[in-house]
Amino acid sequence: MQYQNNFTPTISDNELFNEIVKEKEYIGYYNLVNQDTTAFKAYAKDVKQKNIVVIGIGGSTLGTYAIYKFLKHSKNLSKNLYFLETTDPIDIKSKIATINLADTLFVIISKSGTTVETVSIFKYINTLVQVDASNTVVITENDSKLNFYAQSNGMQTFEIPKNVGGRFSVLSAVGLLPLAIVGIDIDEILAGAKDVYNSFFQLCAQDETQVDYHERVLKKARFFTEYRNKFNINVVFSYSSRLEGFNKWYIQLWGESLGKMDSNQSRQGLTPIGIIGPIDQHSFLQLIVGGTRDKTVTVVKVEDFDNHLKIPQITLAGLEELDYLDNVEFSSLINMQADATIESINSFGDIPCDVITITGVNERAVASLMYEYELLTSVCAKFMYINAYDQPGVESGKIILKDKLANK
Amino acid sequence: MQYQNNFTPTISDNELFNEIVKEKEYIGYYNLVNQDTTAFKAYAKDVKQKNIVVIGIGGSTLGTYAIYKFLKHSKNLSKNLYFLETTDPIDIKSKIATINLADTLFVIISKSGTTVETVSIFKYINTLVQVDASNTVVITENDSKLNFYAQSNGMQTFEIPKNVGGRFSVLSAVGLLPLAIVGIDIDEILAGAKDVYNSFFQLCAQDETQVDYHERVLKKARFFTEYRNKFNINVVFSYSSRLEGFNKWYIQLWGESLGKMDSNQSRQGLTPIGIIGPIDQHSFLQLIVGGTRDKTVTVVKVEDFDNHLKIPQITLAGLEELDYLDNVEFSSLINMQADATIESINSFGDIPCDVITITGVNERAVASLMYEYELLTSVCAKFMYINAYDQPGVESGKIILKDKLANK
Repeated sequence: MQYQNNFTPTISDNELFNEIVKEKEYIGYYNLVNQDTTAFKAYAKDVKQKNIVVIGIGGSTLGTYAIYKFLKHSKNLSKNLYFLETTDPIDIKSKIATINLADTLFVIISKSGTTVETVSIFKYINTLVQVDASNTVVITENDSKLNFYAQSNGMQTFEIPKNVGGRFSVLSAVGLLPLAIVGIDIDEILAGAKDVYNSFFQLCAQDETQVDYHERVLKKARFFTEYRNKFNINVVFSYSSRLEGFNKWYIQLWGESLGKMDSNQSRQGLTPIGIIGPIDQHSFLQLIVGGTRDKTVTVVKVEDFDNHLKIPQITLAGLEELDYLDNVEFSSLINMQADATIESINSFGDIPCDVITITGVNERAVASLMYEYELLTSVCAKFMYINAYDQPGVESGKIILKDKLANK
Repeated sequence: MQYQNNFTPTISDNELFNEIVKEKEYIGYYNLVNQDTTAFKAYAKDVKQKNIVVIGIGGSTLGTYAIYKFLKHSKNLSKNLYFLETTDPIDIKSKIATINLADTLFVIISKSGTTVETVSIFKYINTLVQVDASNTVVITENDSKLNFYAQSNGMQTFEIPKNVGGRFSVLSAVGLLPLAIVGIDIDEILAGAKDVYNSFFQLCAQDETQVDYHERVLKKARFFTEYRNKFNINVVFSYSSRLEGFNKWYIQLWGESLGKMDSNQSRQGLTPIGIIGPIDQHSFLQLIVGGTRDKTVTVVKVEDFDNHLKIPQITLAGLEELDYLDNVEFSSLINMQADATIESINSFGDIPCDVITITGVNERAVASLMYEYELLTSVCAKFMYINAYDQPGVESGKIILKDKLANK
């Protein structure tokens, strides 16, 4: 008896892990944790300007914004960081109006070097201030046209390696250079990512007090992908306003990596949603617990806000019933709100839910969270037989736009 | 021959419309367009403070924020508007640090009057500044405990009618009072909503130059609900950063209204996603065009930004191929980007997509967009046999939290 098939077979955790180990040889983001940061820190040390304006879009800004937004009120940062990324004219104008351009360093970031939004805004900046090697640094691929421009003008450049995709580039110069300039400890960022890297790739002895990222990532990815037709939506419910940037970065990473044809020409996709507690507890939670069972939920908690802001012991006439709030720290309240949400979700028994708790508002914490999500994305893509690192749908939109502009 | 059934029958457009007309008699938000705004304007005129701080969460802030964010850089507003809504301690502290509290009017908004976040933050404010009738106004239900507090302290109050739900309350005092205070034309807001109201309820003669909201809303709601098991995700893709607040408001309105049990005890839900072009064109668009066909897409365009910011005619060495951008206004560029996205989506032929174009960055435009979405939400709920106006899932989370706090 003979049997022929052209199925792409299902895969064991071990086989899949071995595929990722192979991929690590040619996909660049994995090994960014082992980078030498000397050049970034040396450049950062000499920056005199008070304002740092990143001009870029998508993968060129979202990761940096995520880390900056998480840390900026908890660190004593010496400089201000701004992002110009949209072509909305009102947005460009109102943002620029708040910045002293004479005391600004411009960080121009485009992997391809010819991103329409980035070049448009950069051209506009040229009409407002003298742009030259003293106030501009460029981050791009080594052979891009933007790199040629920078070289022609004697501007310092930093490289985005060819094999590091935009949405996986936060730990390259794209994120580390601007973050180092404003005073964030980029070695701690890499250390946080490396903790996850070591655990996932089983490169260090691990005891029971540490998270086993190998098991955690593989198990979660298997669940998400095996049930993707039932639960086609993956909600990240972050209990800190400081994680708003992380949510946005997650949405890009997940959506752009996991929405495409698989190797059998079947369309696949997992849809990311990022919400913020307790705000969205007053809205989206209804859909999660009351609505169709089509969502997984990952709650992200911050264990130690290092902030002891407290609800005072004050009685308001008529509102005495709320005096149980007195003397509660806001950081305890927000975590109790997270716990109430988790309890509410779990009480139904049919909503897949996991909880990630990060320790402290610091570089290590946010970097470990982000690196875990990068790994999770790569592993989900492997389970789904799709290429996490291309974006044909985005490229086709860009071609249509360029045609429209060229033929206007 | 006999036939018995207990089905809830499907419904014609006309029958459904008649249900909405009946509902209009007891659901309060519909008729807010016919409100007398004299009291709001009279109060607003006398406000001396430069800063207006709204303390509220969810439905008490999102609609106001949506309108303010859309308009603030296009109007010459005399005052600053801030929102304190989260219990994140770092967020509370960093926001308050930027506001001169001595020159601030506090607008305390809670429909129930006992919202944990709102009362907690208000208590904290009491430790920073003397809170009294001179700098505090309260918006709540007439018989709430917060109303009692306000009366006890001689503070002015405005009512949220019992039959106006929080997420449908933007056109009540909740939105109109703070917006009037900062200098936004609230009569124009109501006029924009009333245009849609009149057309939808067929209360005015209509010619071909006007949008027929009656047909548009019914058709769209029927499509969204009939195909809800195939397309369980409804993306709003707004091509202006100014619509970021609108997106957030839409997410609450849609998620909290449409995620629940129907009259046959079957879980229903349509999941809202709000994204911003061109930024998310560099990410989420891949998932839309490349991924599983489980999404409808509504593109929102702004026809006239009333802003002529232009890409200058400058050639950058090496980047000459992008000189086709020269002399293009950013407002044209962003709309060409929207058109390129629409063209890309439509080229696939199997992604449901509609385009809403609003005219100008003004009160009328944003109010008509929001009122259309309120109607669409109500009509979808009717088609799905669910109650758009309750939120049992949110309430159950609140009870768990109160238990945790009381027993801490």
